[in-house]
Amino acid sequence: MKTAICPGSFDPITLGHIDIIKRVSKLFDKIIVVVLPNPRKNPCFTIEERLDFIKRATADIPNVEVDCYEGLLADYCKKKQACCVVKGLRAVSDFEYEFQMALSNKKLNPDTETIFLTTSEQNLYLSSSIVKQIASYGGDISHFVPSCILEDIKNRLLKGSKGNEC
Amino acid sequence: MKTAICPGSFDPITLGHIDIIKRVSKLFDKIIVVVLPNPRKNPCFTIEERLDFIKRATADIPNVEVDCYEGLLADYCKKKQACCVVKGLRAVSDFEYEFQMALSNKKLNPDTETIFLTTSEQNLYLSSSIVKQIASYGGDISHFVPSCILEDIKNRLLKGSKGNEC
Amino acid sequence: MKTAICPGSFDPITLGHIDIIKRVSKLFDKIIVVVLPNPRKNPCFTIEERLDFIKRATADIPNVEVDCYEGLLADYCKKKQACCVVKGLRAVSDFEYEFQMALSNKKLNPDTETIFLTTSEQNLYLSSSIVKQIASYGGDISHFVPSCILEDIKNRLLKGSKGNEC
Amino acid sequence: MKTAICPGSFDPITLGHIDIIKRVSKLFDKIIVVVLPNPRKNPCFTIEERLDFIKRATADIPNVEVDCYEGLLADYCKKKQACCVVKGLRAVSDFEYEFQMALSNKKLNPDTETIFLTTSEQNLYLSSSIVKQIASYGGDISHFVPSCILEDIKNRLLKGSKGNEC
Amino acid sequence: MKTAICPGSFDPITLGHIDIIKRVSKLFDKIIVVVLPNPRKNPCFTIEERLDFIKRATADIPNVEVDCYEGLLADYCKKKQACCVVKGLRAVSDFEYEFQMALSNKKLNPDTETIFLTTSEQNLYLSSSIVKQIASYGGDISHFVPSCILEDIKNRLLKGSKGNEC
Amino acid sequence: MKTAICPGSFDPITLGHIDIIKRVSKLFDKIIVVVLPNPRKNPCFTIEERLDFIKRATADIPNVEVDCYEGLLADYCKKKQACCVVKGLRAVSDFEYEFQMALSNKKLNPDTETIFLTTSEQNLYLSSSIVKQIASYGGDISHFVPSCILEDIKNRLLKGSKGNEC
Repeated sequence: MKTAICPGSFDPITLGHIDIIKRVSKLFDKIIVVVLPNPRKNPCFTIEERLDFIKRATADIPNVEVDCYEGLLADYCKKKQACCVVKGLRAVSDFEYEFQMALSNKKLNPDTETIFLTTSEQNLYLSSSIVKQIASYGGDISHFVPSCILEDIKNRLLKGSKGNEC
Repeated sequence: MKTAICPGSFDPITLGHIDIIKRVSKLFDKIIVVVLPNPRKNPCFTIEERLDFIKRATADIPNVEVDCYEGLLADYCKKKQACCVVKGLRAVSDFEYEFQMALSNKKLNPDTETIFLTTSEQNLYLSSSIVKQIASYGGDISHFVPSCILEDIKNRLLKGSKGNEC
Repeated sequence: MKTAICPGSFDPITLGHIDIIKRVSKLFDKIIVVVLPNPRKNPCFTIEERLDFIKRATADIPNVEVDCYEGLLADYCKKKQACCVVKGLRAVSDFEYEFQMALSNKKLNPDTETIFLTTSEQNLYLSSSIVKQIASYGGDISHFVPSCILEDIKNRLLKGSKGNEC
Repeated sequence: MKTAICPGSFDPITLGHIDIIKRVSKLFDKIIVVVLPNPRKNPCFTIEERLDFIKRATADIPNVEVDCYEGLLADYCKKKQACCVVKGLRAVSDFEYEFQMALSNKKLNPDTETIFLTTSEQNLYLSSSIVKQIASYGGDISHFVPSCILEDIKNRLLKGSKGNEC
Repeated sequence: MKTAICPGSFDPITLGHIDIIKRVSKLFDKIIVVVLPNPRKNPCFTIEERLDFIKRATADIPNVEVDCYEGLLADYCKKKQACCVVKGLRAVSDFEYEFQMALSNKKLNPDTETIFLTTSEQNLYLSSSIVKQIASYGGDISHFVPSCILEDIKNRLLKGSKGNEC
Repeated sequence: MKTAICPGSFDPITLGHIDIIKRVSKLFDKIIVVVLPNPRKNPCFTIEERLDFIKRATADIPNVEVDCYEGLLADYCKKKQACCVVKGLRAVSDFEYEFQMALSNKKLNPDTETIFLTTSEQNLYLSSSIVKQIASYGGDISHFVPSCILEDIKNRLLKGSKGNEC
């Protein structure tokens, strides 16, 4: 059985994430979507909120599991005996950062590959940051996040200070 | 009448900004230079200072208005019935970020285009950040900012902590 | 009256070109779509064919003119008293090449700006080369070229040698 | 059973290709390495030579098949019911071209994903072109191509005209 | 006598830095490795610690001096009569930032060139940030930093908060 | 004594090349400008013409030698005991190609470094190709090539076919 890992901060999960998860779920037997708390970013949503959003938004994809992990991605992959890590690429700058992370993870854990999928064209401009920025000004984010979690995200983000990404 | 919007944080306005504003002022009937407070950046100058600097530095361009707006750029363009947003590009990394912002704004407001001008070659290295960094160490910024606001910028930046961008 | 120039080899015109032309036609009073024979490329279609395709595909945009010119773009802009040249950007590599061309043209003719629009997301993968490659293998190009010229393009490209871009 | 396709011109196969094929052979049940004659490039080796090199160089990877196909990659994937196409990325310029090809192939055949692996760091500088250029001047290519086909490649390339990529 | 400057924050020095310093030490008579406190970054190690690490890690390169400077790099180069500044490039994003810094420094001090070396392929993924991130989770950093300072770096970083870059 | 090599096709030499050669002549004791016939490009000028142009254009730089070499750059550097190869970078695409060439040459000859200088901002748009394209249409190239060879270049290029890069 082949297991693939989809890591991220998912703060919050967007339609861009969902698209990647759906497409990769057809390539491997099991997909684990794992929230990695990025210590360099001030998250907007708690780990619990983020896990809840991911679970609801991926409920219709049968071979998806949701998890969180505080530690090195390379160690998590070993623990889960994953064959690969999956990342979506939108732009050249994504590519460069992810390229370095992939080489670095390969050094720490040679048994796990990193594979990249290109973002679908309708999600090219889409990032969790942009969602938060638009929502904080009361803009319409219904094209950006799964409809089943839209209201919860809107409510939470409007409570934050104006224009601030939490 | 065609109105174009030049948005930015202008913290402070540089000769690179002036060059873009002058060149675009020949393409459209009215240019609105609008200060958008970027909540992710800690500004060095207050909104009032920035507006004052822009007004003085663009006083000789007849079809320029100066404004500030706290909200989504896409909403501001609708309100002003602007046909386009204008951004200057210095580098590939600018391009990628602005490409995503342009697609995102188009989604929120399909009636406003984003157009890009390339920075003149003598301004390629020029950014508000570099101006602030050089000035904070007492370096010469006379080639980087309009002469009519040079002294005010130097005085303000020397008061900040050394090497700090305010 | 503001005139903008849309130059290219248009070998053949695609839906990506049409999208840029339509969007820019709302920004300026007159748009001239001009075929520049690129001596470095072996064209697939004759100048006459390309002009015919462009005319039919832009017939519904009132302020568009179609022309061809053998010479420097900078000279053509002077002759037409154009305020700007318009280019669509798909990718970083486009951006770099066009950046250099824009600086070079500015040197030869300081009165004409080059402005850039980003390709709409659905046209990001679209180029005349890809159209020709797909058509030469009998692939479906109906999503890539204007429907009014689809049959003519398909017929012409199937006659070329297999897999060859003419 | 999951089948992945590794397409290329393989003119000739290098250690960079072998590395990608080996790594991807652990992710999927069957790998088909397929030579696509690129009509835009003048190949140095015949299709038969290239297939022979690939077969010998991948003989020790059990789940690899070798094939050639003249036509659209999207059609080949349909025919083989492949779940994905695999490409190795060395650089940003690779990424941009492959990104466009991936979006284009997805349009023609939505059932096949394109996934990307990063080149191992020791193969970053490695391309079939560089191998041919070095060999044509009698340079040492033993670090660049599989040892089992080294002599055949050297002999063939020395016969070509000096400095010419055949 | 030709003097070259290797500036950086060196927080901490990695094998990537050492590689660049060794290679450039063969090109010029004297190399000054200078710690520039970057006010925009929260350093993990004190200036004293960083100087100590650099001195121990470069002890076997005879023509290397170690220094620190709070001020503009352009001014430091003038003071030291350096003919050039040396920077290692890993990626396109490095290149863009450094290109702008080089043009900016040239404006402030026309007598000092900036030259770039490419990172060796085994160090492509290596940065002080990645070292700190891995070490903070107790990961193995022995392939990333000089062995003579490995224990000191590990001890210091484990004391910081988990996952935090100090 | 430190020798640096400036390789290129110099078809023809431009003010951009001269700028790099002048700047690097201050960093090393001897500079060898070497014409490498690139077998992939159809040159416009003969080797003899190119050598003559370079000699006249660099006559006032005392430590410059001019040479040509048909073979691998790595071998030429060994023969000349050069400490480094120097390349000018204008853009990200230059950077990527040169990065790969640098890693490749290092593999073939570990004793020679490749160092990069950034093009001065006024030469960013400048390439031999653009010079040839402009001159072939009778455009003004006086800002692009050294004045001492301007007439010879103009005369030769006007004889070529219109718009063709020879």
